Amino acid sequence: MASKLRRHSVEMTTASASGHPTTCMSVAEIVSTLFFHEMRWDPKAPHARDVDTFVLSKGHAAPILWAALKEAGGIEEDLLSLRKFDSTLEGHPTPRNPWVRVATGSLGQGLSCAAGMAVARRQDGIPARIYCLLGDGESAEGSVWEAAQFAAHNQLDNLCALVDVNALGQSGATMPVHNIDAYLARFVSFGWHAISVDGHNIDELLQAFEGARNTAGRPTAIICKTEKGKGFSMVEGKDGWHGKPFKKDGTFEKAIEEFGDTDITLEVTPRRIEAQTLPESAFAIDDPLLAPTYEEGDQVATRQGYGAALVKLGKVSPDVMALDGDTKNSTFSEKFKNAHPDRFVECYIAEQNMAGVALGLAVEGKIPFASSFACFLSRAYDQLRMSVYSRPHHFVLCGSHVGVSIGEDGPSQMGLEDIAMFRALIGTTVLYPGDAVSAERLTCAAALTPGIVYVRTTRPKTRMLYKNGEMCPIGGSKTWGDGTDATIVAAGITLHEALEAQKLLKEKNIQVRVIDAYSIKPIDEEALQKAAKETKTVITVEDHSACGGLGEAVSGIIGPVKILAVREIPRSGQPDELLDKYGINRRAIMEAVQESLQK
Amino acid sequence: MASKLRRHSVEMTTASASGHPTTCMSVAEIVSTLFFHEMRWDPKAPHARDVDTFVLSKGHAAPILWAALKEAGGIEEDLLSLRKFDSTLEGHPTPRNPWVRVATGSLGQGLSCAAGMAVARRQDGIPARIYCLLGDGESAEGSVWEAAQFAAHNQLDNLCALVDVNALGQSGATMPVHNIDAYLARFVSFGWHAISVDGHNIDELLQAFEGARNTAGRPTAIICKTEKGKGFSMVEGKDGWHGKPFKKDGTFEKAIEEFGDTDITLEVTPRRIEAQTLPESAFAIDDPLLAPTYEEGDQVATRQGYGAALVKLGKVSPDVMALDGDTKNSTFSEKFKNAHPDRFVECYIAEQNMAGVALGLAVEGKIPFASSFACFLSRAYDQLRMSVYSRPHHFVLCGSHVGVSIGEDGPSQMGLEDIAMFRALIGTTVLYPGDAVSAERLTCAAALTPGIVYVRTTRPKTRMLYKNGEMCPIGGSKTWGDGTDATIVAAGITLHEALEAQKLLKEKNIQVRVIDAYSIKPIDEEALQKAAKETKTVITVEDHSACGGLGEAVSGIIGPVKILAVREIPRSGQPDELLDKYGINRRAIMEAVQESLQK
Repeated sequence: MASKLRRHSVEMTTASASGHPTTCMSVAEIVSTLFFHEMRWDPKAPHARDVDTFVLSKGHAAPILWAALKEAGGIEEDLLSLRKFDSTLEGHPTPRNPWVRVATGSLGQGLSCAAGMAVARRQDGIPARIYCLLGDGESAEGSVWEAAQFAAHNQLDNLCALVDVNALGQSGATMPVHNIDAYLARFVSFGWHAISVDGHNIDELLQAFEGARNTAGRPTAIICKTEKGKGFSMVEGKDGWHGKPFKKDGTFEKAIEEFGDTDITLEVTPRRIEAQTLPESAFAIDDPLLAPTYEEGDQVATRQGYGAALVKLGKVSPDVMALDGDTKNSTFSEKFKNAHPDRFVECYIAEQNMAGVALGLAVEGKIPFASSFACFLSRAYDQLRMSVYSRPHHFVLCGSHVGVSIGEDGPSQMGLEDIAMFRALIGTTVLYPGDAVSAERLTCAAALTPGIVYVRTTRPKTRMLYKNGEMCPIGGSKTWGDGTDATIVAAGITLHEALEAQKLLKEKNIQVRVIDAYSIKPIDEEALQKAAKETKTVITVEDHSACGGLGEAVSGIIGPVKILAVREIPRSGQPDELLDKYGINRRAIMEAVQESLQK
Repeated sequence: MASKLRRHSVEMTTASASGHPTTCMSVAEIVSTLFFHEMRWDPKAPHARDVDTFVLSKGHAAPILWAALKEAGGIEEDLLSLRKFDSTLEGHPTPRNPWVRVATGSLGQGLSCAAGMAVARRQDGIPARIYCLLGDGESAEGSVWEAAQFAAHNQLDNLCALVDVNALGQSGATMPVHNIDAYLARFVSFGWHAISVDGHNIDELLQAFEGARNTAGRPTAIICKTEKGKGFSMVEGKDGWHGKPFKKDGTFEKAIEEFGDTDITLEVTPRRIEAQTLPESAFAIDDPLLAPTYEEGDQVATRQGYGAALVKLGKVSPDVMALDGDTKNSTFSEKFKNAHPDRFVECYIAEQNMAGVALGLAVEGKIPFASSFACFLSRAYDQLRMSVYSRPHHFVLCGSHVGVSIGEDGPSQMGLEDIAMFRALIGTTVLYPGDAVSAERLTCAAALTPGIVYVRTTRPKTRMLYKNGEMCPIGGSKTWGDGTDATIVAAGITLHEALEAQKLLKEKNIQVRVIDAYSIKPIDEEALQKAAKETKTVITVEDHSACGGLGEAVSGIIGPVKILAVREIPRSGQPDELLDKYGINRRAIMEAVQESLQK
């Protein structure tokens, strides 16, 4: 069967004239033993959770995954449609094919997702196993070692990593080449059970799987010594063949010849794992349990509102889980930990893994809320980018401590690019509450919004602007005043500055209206267009960099506006003096309005 | 001296009412032995390279760094100005203070930078040592292990990492707590020499430094077992004191009392390391050696132009270096490797470390060009964000394989957020050439442009649009035609589509002009405003997500334009069919122009 899978991989990539045959060839025995012997699964049930599940972290080996699924009866599609426009057999795995839980292809991300899936299965009392196949090249990614620590710390013995050590990367040899002992020592030092095998020896692989299955309290890594291009003497173990299909100039034909007799069919007997049935979970945004309960004079930071809403969400939905990157006392996800400790996942200072684990939970049906300082979510941008392609039902991220208003800690701790970062991702929702009530409402709305939702919270305490009963629908906004001189569009901390500027301008007989653009993506186009029509000038003000943020979102709708934003490298100082220094406080807003009107 | 540094740290953070005293207290002996005994340095020469250099990866321990520098006579500033608006003693280290080479405070980044500095010193024949102090909490970041692999693989025996294992993070205990053996095993498994010491024992520290100095062929990690808050019984080893200054309610006073007699002064004797003098390096953008030499009919990808320019730059400047993330045969940085192997740094599949190493090289006076697929640079977004705050003279990144035009590999390999990502960073330059000539010119210009410069290159081959002699100044643009019906603003692959659309529209008697916005940031405001004034409608078209890219950059200048961009999750397919499917090809441009004109 391994030979047949090799043959398929070669035929597929030659047909598409692109793809990675040699990458597939090194893992043929690993994949065949997994799919046709070790894993308990059902070729008719791609979405089942009561089965063992496979994650292909080395996504460029997609052809052999499609080949194995086809041979097992899991897919009907023509293998030769690989990489074609209307095929689900994409160049790297994506959930366009129902068997793919998480999109891969940016290397080093699969193990975190697999760990998240393993947590979810354990959480739900499903004793299924997660198998994750990694390349050796991608093991240079730090995210692999973040995942390794996490899995060991959480004693994920339902997780098995297979490392395909073929010693060759895209453009040359890997750092450790075939030093199997180095891989063993690394996994062991990170707390894993580790076994080395000849990755082309079926017996050794089966024995290792058994060893993994019988290991309690630790995940197992099976380090497989392999040859890239195994099975075809011309390329086996040779550099320079990465991502190169064999041409039909004799090369392809020679490969097929060397694979020999591949006339074999193996049936996969459907095997399900006994698991408890989970209760249906559903809740509504207007559930009374979710209502904010603040008093008018309260001073509460939006990050506190986030924490409060999380606790309430945990009560109305068993699916809600919270993840932290050792900032829980700052983001207020700690509140959730205290209320629902069994659904809180501490990921320590490793944001890439936090994002990957959250995605793993998400594709298992959980509603993960992963939070850290906004600036540190930039650490996981590639994981977030890939999450888009995994199409999770729900995946909420919260970034706290945004902008210069954090004050003394200085620029390293200031989220100044996060709006741009999240807006640029296709299909995301970006929310930025200005008070604790709207923070609660938007946090709850995030849990019910499909796909990736980002909630941006602020460090300093601020006064209440919304009544407990107001709902803050996504795509909406709120306008204060109906002045026709100018419109100030703001969100978060600058909303408070804008409202102060509104008062001060009124004293100068300048009548402005203030729009709270709490829903930055999608933005309230109608309200903006109305304001643009009814007022002489529009100014935006944001505690964020000038590119890709609120100002440009508004410009894209109603044209060039005066964008007040942070345009130079900020520094340590007190929040108020920093807002002033970088021109995003009431003074700067007033000046911008007056200047615009004088033109 | 350690006690005195503790005392300073406590006084400073209490005065600023913010900061991390206990984090400083665990490293007092490490810092005092380094600065007052081990390191060869000159308190009067902050920028010297012929000295040992210190990198504080755990940036929140900034107060003790400032204290040590003050005690050694390196700074004059009042320590109690910590975190004040006009002080260089920021909450986390930044180069506002001359002693800081790289800004830190986003954890886990210092070791990569230190490794880059170690490479630069070795490159330049300066036998100085780089000492990097890490926290244990930050060692959960995968980037630390990327750096560890890199340093061992490159045999950086001039690099010494000190890990402060105080077992406490911000919001709780670290994963390995005080398991010193785990840290030792991890560093050893990654190829380091590793020593464990009691981090509060001066003798053990000095002995370890000696051990590190005498180790050839490998970097050394000194694993220091410490107590957070060491020296003050009330907080020593206790959770809940992270980032909390001591109040003057008796707590502060008690701490000072426990530190005992701190009346000590130690003089640092300036020690320089014998090093060769480097030749001055300077070149001009119009150096004939840098001129492109294409023929009119050539079909050359912009990524090839990048590679060609890199080779030429390497010839005119000894400072130019190239870094790769195992994609050198795709980005064409391989050309540089072949021409200048001694200045090529292979970073394998570990983009965070690549960015950190490049920054380390940059602050040592090199002109690093780090390249990978554009999408994978998102892996290093936090490192790039922090690089802004390190204010490097030159730091060039090149992202290849942008947008859906890469074709069959699918979305995981498509750079669709990179323009937004780089534009959002304060003070960056973003360049996006449309042919090989402009790719060469812009790559060369990047080497002479201060700060962080991003060059975006395309996978498919394209025809020549510029003459070999044209210069493509940054902030400029080029316009084809003077039609008054519409302006099409494009760059990269869509520039070719726009020029085709221009021809096809002419047949329909619609006269458009096409602007090549190769300089996306700064953008050519004047040309855009002129076009907006002279034509009836403006359309932008980009192989990028719709948010934060070319379209919004243009909207910010001239108002709402029709933005053609990738708005849904793309898939595998052929470049042409994908450009068509996502509405950014000649057909879509024509339709958009016609539709706009009908309004």
